[in-house]
Amino acid sequence: MWEANEDNLEAIAMGAGILGTGGGGNPYIGQLRARQAIRERGPVTVLDPEELPDDAQVICVGGIGAPTVGVEKVRDLQSLYALRAIEEFTGKKATALISNEIGGSNSVEPLIPAAITGLPVVDADGMGRAFPEFQMKTFFVYGVPWCPMAIADEKGNTVIIPQTINPAWAERLARAITVQMGCVACYALAPMTAEQVRTTAVLNSLSLARDLGDAVIRARMRGEDPLAAILGTCPGRILFTGKISDVDRRTTSGFARGNLSLEGSGENSGEQLAIYFQNENLIARKDGVVICTVPDLICIVDSETGEPVTTELLRYGLRVTVMGFPAPSLWTTPEGLAVAGPQVFGYDNAYSPIQI
Amino acid sequence: MWEANEDNLEAIAMGAGILGTGGGGNPYIGQLRARQAIRERGPVTVLDPEELPDDAQVICVGGIGAPTVGVEKVRDLQSLYALRAIEEFTGKKATALISNEIGGSNSVEPLIPAAITGLPVVDADGMGRAFPEFQMKTFFVYGVPWCPMAIADEKGNTVIIPQTINPAWAERLARAITVQMGCVACYALAPMTAEQVRTTAVLNSLSLARDLGDAVIRARMRGEDPLAAILGTCPGRILFTGKISDVDRRTTSGFARGNLSLEGSGENSGEQLAIYFQNENLIARKDGVVICTVPDLICIVDSETGEPVTTELLRYGLRVTVMGFPAPSLWTTPEGLAVAGPQVFGYDNAYSPIQI
Repeated sequence: MWEANEDNLEAIAMGAGILGTGGGGNPYIGQLRARQAIRERGPVTVLDPEELPDDAQVICVGGIGAPTVGVEKVRDLQSLYALRAIEEFTGKKATALISNEIGGSNSVEPLIPAAITGLPVVDADGMGRAFPEFQMKTFFVYGVPWCPMAIADEKGNTVIIPQTINPAWAERLARAITVQMGCVACYALAPMTAEQVRTTAVLNSLSLARDLGDAVIRARMRGEDPLAAILGTCPGRILFTGKISDVDRRTTSGFARGNLSLEGSGENSGEQLAIYFQNENLIARKDGVVICTVPDLICIVDSETGEPVTTELLRYGLRVTVMGFPAPSLWTTPEGLAVAGPQVFGYDNAYSPIQI
Repeated sequence: MWEANEDNLEAIAMGAGILGTGGGGNPYIGQLRARQAIRERGPVTVLDPEELPDDAQVICVGGIGAPTVGVEKVRDLQSLYALRAIEEFTGKKATALISNEIGGSNSVEPLIPAAITGLPVVDADGMGRAFPEFQMKTFFVYGVPWCPMAIADEKGNTVIIPQTINPAWAERLARAITVQMGCVACYALAPMTAEQVRTTAVLNSLSLARDLGDAVIRARMRGEDPLAAILGTCPGRILFTGKISDVDRRTTSGFARGNLSLEGSGENSGEQLAIYFQNENLIARKDGVVICTVPDLICIVDSETGEPVTTELLRYGLRVTVMGFPAPSLWTTPEGLAVAGPQVFGYDNAYSPIQI
């Protein structure tokens, strides 16, 4: 058990921003929103999954939309509205909340309704990174029902999806609804049991995000290398170092889609890296050769500061370091790869785990 | 009280097809679907609104989508699924069903779940004609809540909209959901009371449709003029007679939108008529001068047979007669015109009632 408060919020959002592989929402905005809620209502208790009472009812809340829109149309209390809607629909009250994914904004999203309602948050999430589509959650891969879900906007519109024939249909309907809601909305799932959380979630991912952000902040304060601090906290490796030479980014069908090109520097002088993204970074090709794909993490950070460079912040001239981290083991099973492997996103590469 | 059965089904669908002003779904397909349900499960009791018990719970069911798609992707039991979903959501069982609108398919849509469940149908509807958008119902104009509503597709996907800030937002979300469902879906509203039906519905519209269709069928059998039979049953007048010389029709954003041109014949020789439609015919201009607009009815029938020519059936060369009928009085109040007058559809004309 630990406490999410004004002191560690920046670290959580920054670490989650790095692990969010470009998506999951803007870390700075996520942090500001959570900070306001915690300042007004007090800190939030973060429970280890082992500390959850057996009769816990854990509701997953998260944002849905395009990160490019989320920085212009800042979320308000949509996750609270979605939480209330699903509680009313199911007749079951939440006793704890959980993040849908680890991303700059989505990792701290549950802290807002948690601060307001006084509920604790579980130190776990449904991806251990960020993914663009609703159905890409370890919860659903390992048996948690994907419906009912509730979606809410900031105006007072709510929608419940009580039943779909598969998780991809829930995504399809939820995405179309989100586009109408202004490409920014929040959702909540029906309560999970403690046992479901322990067996289907990526565990202790919120404390990993906190530790990662904390390591970067401390390294900066000490004048040490923040990139080394990242790799010292979370085992991975540097895939490429260089300068962003081109960004092709479109907000379409409720996603930010596109690709970016990097010109190498230092060890990568004369080389080129291309990264394709759909909210999140999906595949990295160095001089035409695939060097990392989903579900492994392709994370872009500022080479000087270690600050995450999320999809909506990509721009020409940024000097960045691309890091790769192994996917949580729940994703590298055949069931996991069937939901979030490279072929799901239209790439014909088989998944080849990153070597670190 | 009367009975909708295999004998009068053709008349109901044909009359409703005429009153549907181009929309409301294809009369032939609607009739075939209702015929199958009635053949398998028996006829349906049609109650006069005055015969409804005071504690009645009347659920409105209807189709949503583009009529151009409805003839290719024929509906199945979506209205039954939507009915069950809203009953489950509200915890209230229907004791009678009601049509959302009078249109070739939508007027008989409730007969399908009614035949299957054994429920009666009320001789009334929410428009007294057809309109393209969900919120354009006399129910909502006069105080019935527009939410919650349920939407269902044929595959097993259902969505509930428990709350929107206004009826137009319910339309906006429902339309986006319908487009994802293949541009063809059905919806059901929460139960209305008998009192609400009596004060907010267009009354006895199903028997008007039946009588109108019956008059056309009998005129044909007797070798009499079916157009005279229509005008003898439902007071209105002929706006134009001619040949369709052009159709510009697009299925877009969940609607069939476009316009058609007619070259006049007989009394209208040398004249031109243009009609603009969004599923339903909205405005008619003769040689550039507006001669009829919503909410008055602009109905196109085959000049020889009196058969309704709905939007999806418009094609070059058809010889048709365009008829105008006064709107039900619930639509010509300031409240009614604010929801379905010409300006709502983007025309700057004030509503000028048709003179008959």
